[in-house]
Amino acid sequence: MKIKVMENILSSNDQLAEANREEFNRRSITVLNVMASPGAGKTSVITELMRRLDGEVAFSVVEGDIASAIDAEKIEAMGVPVLQINTGGGCHLDANMIREAVQELQPPDHSVLFIENVGNLICPSAFDLGETLRMVIASVPEGHDKPYKYVYMFETADVVILNKTDLMPYINFDRDNFIQGVRALNEKAPLFEVSCSTGAGFSELVAWLKKQIR
Amino acid sequence: MKIKVMENILSSNDQLAEANREEFNRRSITVLNVMASPGAGKTSVITELMRRLDGEVAFSVVEGDIASAIDAEKIEAMGVPVLQINTGGGCHLDANMIREAVQELQPPDHSVLFIENVGNLICPSAFDLGETLRMVIASVPEGHDKPYKYVYMFETADVVILNKTDLMPYINFDRDNFIQGVRALNEKAPLFEVSCSTGAGFSELVAWLKKQIR
Repeated sequence: MKIKVMENILSSNDQLAEANREEFNRRSITVLNVMASPGAGKTSVITELMRRLDGEVAFSVVEGDIASAIDAEKIEAMGVPVLQINTGGGCHLDANMIREAVQELQPPDHSVLFIENVGNLICPSAFDLGETLRMVIASVPEGHDKPYKYVYMFETADVVILNKTDLMPYINFDRDNFIQGVRALNEKAPLFEVSCSTGAGFSELVAWLKKQIR
Repeated sequence: MKIKVMENILSSNDQLAEANREEFNRRSITVLNVMASPGAGKTSVITELMRRLDGEVAFSVVEGDIASAIDAEKIEAMGVPVLQINTGGGCHLDANMIREAVQELQPPDHSVLFIENVGNLICPSAFDLGETLRMVIASVPEGHDKPYKYVYMFETADVVILNKTDLMPYINFDRDNFIQGVRALNEKAPLFEVSCSTGAGFSELVAWLKKQIR
């Protein structure tokens, strides 16, 4: 009985996600579902990518948080259209929230839409939003063991980013072990190592993102 | 209908949590439910506390993870009884898992039981395990804005720990803003600032923990 309800929720989410995906495809909007632990640097990676591609493509952002509009205010300060979703306790975004957000935001055709999911390495991975690509961000201070523990998130990533590489000298982080952990789950996703503080690694990440834009 | 099912799950969890709590009280076991983001340092704080109180009180540990036994192996290497729960995708521990774990572990009377919850700043806060105290760990690299975004976790904490203070010089972390955020939600919980790398702040935290042991 409990399982039945869960199946209904997921299948209804999947239907709405498919409708979102069809609209994004029809209008050639590239949608990135950005997922990570709290404080891994989702907003910083998104703002750094938008800064570096400023003028080359139109951006908009959906911000997902339990509470607050701290991240949306940072995006707004850049002059980028942004919509804040407060889930009020909910641990992930779902396809219906994105459907309503897109109706409100009206991102232009051929633009890039970043969806910053709720900070959580678990639940968001189970909910298809209709995104084009899943971007999973890990950060050096979280430690190299994250892929071994949060398998579903890394398994379903289309691109993996290791952020805060500038902190590597101060932390016991086994880079090879991290990469092995990602590769054991996911052979295909490109992996970029970046620092939002120094800008290291961003030229490669920007080059990759430009190739994804349709 | 969906809400009804959710109420049933919670009320059944609450009943089991209450039964756990009665057993812990009857046997004078001090149970800490340790919650944090992935990589905030739950295992490091637990092991450092156990090292410093070695010989003064008996410890046991329940480790909650989606997958892997990485943390349980660290505890086992210290010679402390430990039980690993793999939730297989589940984003939190619940009272029934703890009931079964305690039957298996059989922690002695007057001992301390650490429950390391799944790395997640959201879902675990909604599930009472029957614990004596909720310990919430934030870490400096996650940023000072965590209490503003993950309100329920900080609101319901009995003790808040700010970990990785040794990284403060390398990170743009507004300590006053963090403390203000915690205090706006929670006036009572003591707040300890520690580093597992340098040991800073642990003597105060150990003194506090000793007072909680019954």
